[in-house]
Amino acid sequence: MPRYALKVEYNGAPFAGWQRQADQPSVQGAIEAALARLEPGPHTIAAAGRTDAGVHGLGQVAHCDLTKDWEPFRLSEALNYHLKPQPVAILACARVADDWHARFSATERRYLFRLLMRRAPATHDKGLVWHVRNPLDLDAMREGAAHLIGHHDFTTFRSTICQAKSPVKTLDEITITATKGLSGPEFHFRLRARSFLHNQVRSIVGTLERVGSGAWAPSDVATALAARDRAACGPVCPPHGLYLAAVRYPDDPFA
Amino acid sequence: MPRYALKVEYNGAPFAGWQRQADQPSVQGAIEAALARLEPGPHTIAAAGRTDAGVHGLGQVAHCDLTKDWEPFRLSEALNYHLKPQPVAILACARVADDWHARFSATERRYLFRLLMRRAPATHDKGLVWHVRNPLDLDAMREGAAHLIGHHDFTTFRSTICQAKSPVKTLDEITITATKGLSGPEFHFRLRARSFLHNQVRSIVGTLERVGSGAWAPSDVATALAARDRAACGPVCPPHGLYLAAVRYPDDPFA
Repeated sequence: MPRYALKVEYNGAPFAGWQRQADQPSVQGAIEAALARLEPGPHTIAAAGRTDAGVHGLGQVAHCDLTKDWEPFRLSEALNYHLKPQPVAILACARVADDWHARFSATERRYLFRLLMRRAPATHDKGLVWHVRNPLDLDAMREGAAHLIGHHDFTTFRSTICQAKSPVKTLDEITITATKGLSGPEFHFRLRARSFLHNQVRSIVGTLERVGSGAWAPSDVATALAARDRAACGPVCPPHGLYLAAVRYPDDPFA
Repeated sequence: MPRYALKVEYNGAPFAGWQRQADQPSVQGAIEAALARLEPGPHTIAAAGRTDAGVHGLGQVAHCDLTKDWEPFRLSEALNYHLKPQPVAILACARVADDWHARFSATERRYLFRLLMRRAPATHDKGLVWHVRNPLDLDAMREGAAHLIGHHDFTTFRSTICQAKSPVKTLDEITITATKGLSGPEFHFRLRARSFLHNQVRSIVGTLERVGSGAWAPSDVATALAARDRAACGPVCPPHGLYLAAVRYPDDPFA
């Protein structure tokens, strides 16, 4: 059966997360249902990152196996047709080798976290940003973030239900930039690693917000990391500012 | 009674427009209902621009009269509290003179129109951009737009139900920029004038899209304008890419 890689964008708001569930809408379930309109199912697709409820995708990657030899562009168009009106879009589609795997072949994940900093409630960006009412110090957050770059035991920044075998990961990048969004000043956190632990990004951003607000000193981040203790983490921030931005492979299937 | 100016942001999607209606949700109705939670009504507020259904506000300005002498910041906070969970936010509030009028004192309106250009359906920006699937030529749109700048009879670009006394207006600016949105390439159209005719921005953007697609030559815009005939207009584009971005007054009440 020919295998296809799909680059997927979605608004996570109406979904209980990526992963298929018996009684709740999921992104995986939506795409599998669209596939079933093209070829009789059941279909089971695999994704590079199983995003939580409320988390968005900008460049999630999944793969599926189909019987028919589809022209990739036609397949993406047919899936988009059947996905409507759900906020899920196939941005690109490519034929890949039978042993190519969206999750296991991936060598890098990139996340974006959007934080809107203003007094008034969010309107257009509701559900798409984390709305913080107090001012935040960008330099302090950058100083705090620097302690997390590199190869560390991230037990502090890992959900207690995380299923990864090891809490040791290499965080290659945390970049924080100030930008002007449609509704005011935003901070964009960009994180890059081969792979992430469950809730790692939200644990890190929630902790850095405490640094930005002045409640924590930047060096407190180093102390929390060294504690290797989940209780040492700052508050985990809400999911709706988080986007799985991109997934990298040794050879970009969509190039 | 003290008069207050309000700077208002809203997502137009759930509303039948700015203007209060007996049986449908409106932005005006939402704000008047919030005012009634602060002081017994009925309240009637006036706005700089009565936006249509689906059109958004980034910097709409309205005014209201209240009995009590409110501290402006406290008034905006109280209104935001009562407006929740509707996507309407009071960004700023100021005490103004009793004869100050949000509509009649205004000397300039600025609109932003967002167009998302890509093949796949919109997800995060659904209802916040006009989604166009075909590529558009920015230079051609700019050339077409240049014909509209200045003092003209805009009958061609005016809704047949427009109630303005005269179709003659001065369009001070149309700037079109290419920008990278969260979900791909966007074109932002920025228009500036003392006042606009009903559907003028959507008629202009819809016509310029035809130029961008190659269906019209840039000079066809000049021909359409000179025709002073509604039938000569290109298709009116949908409302949900349109934002009332700012309103200017001789003295900025929010400064």
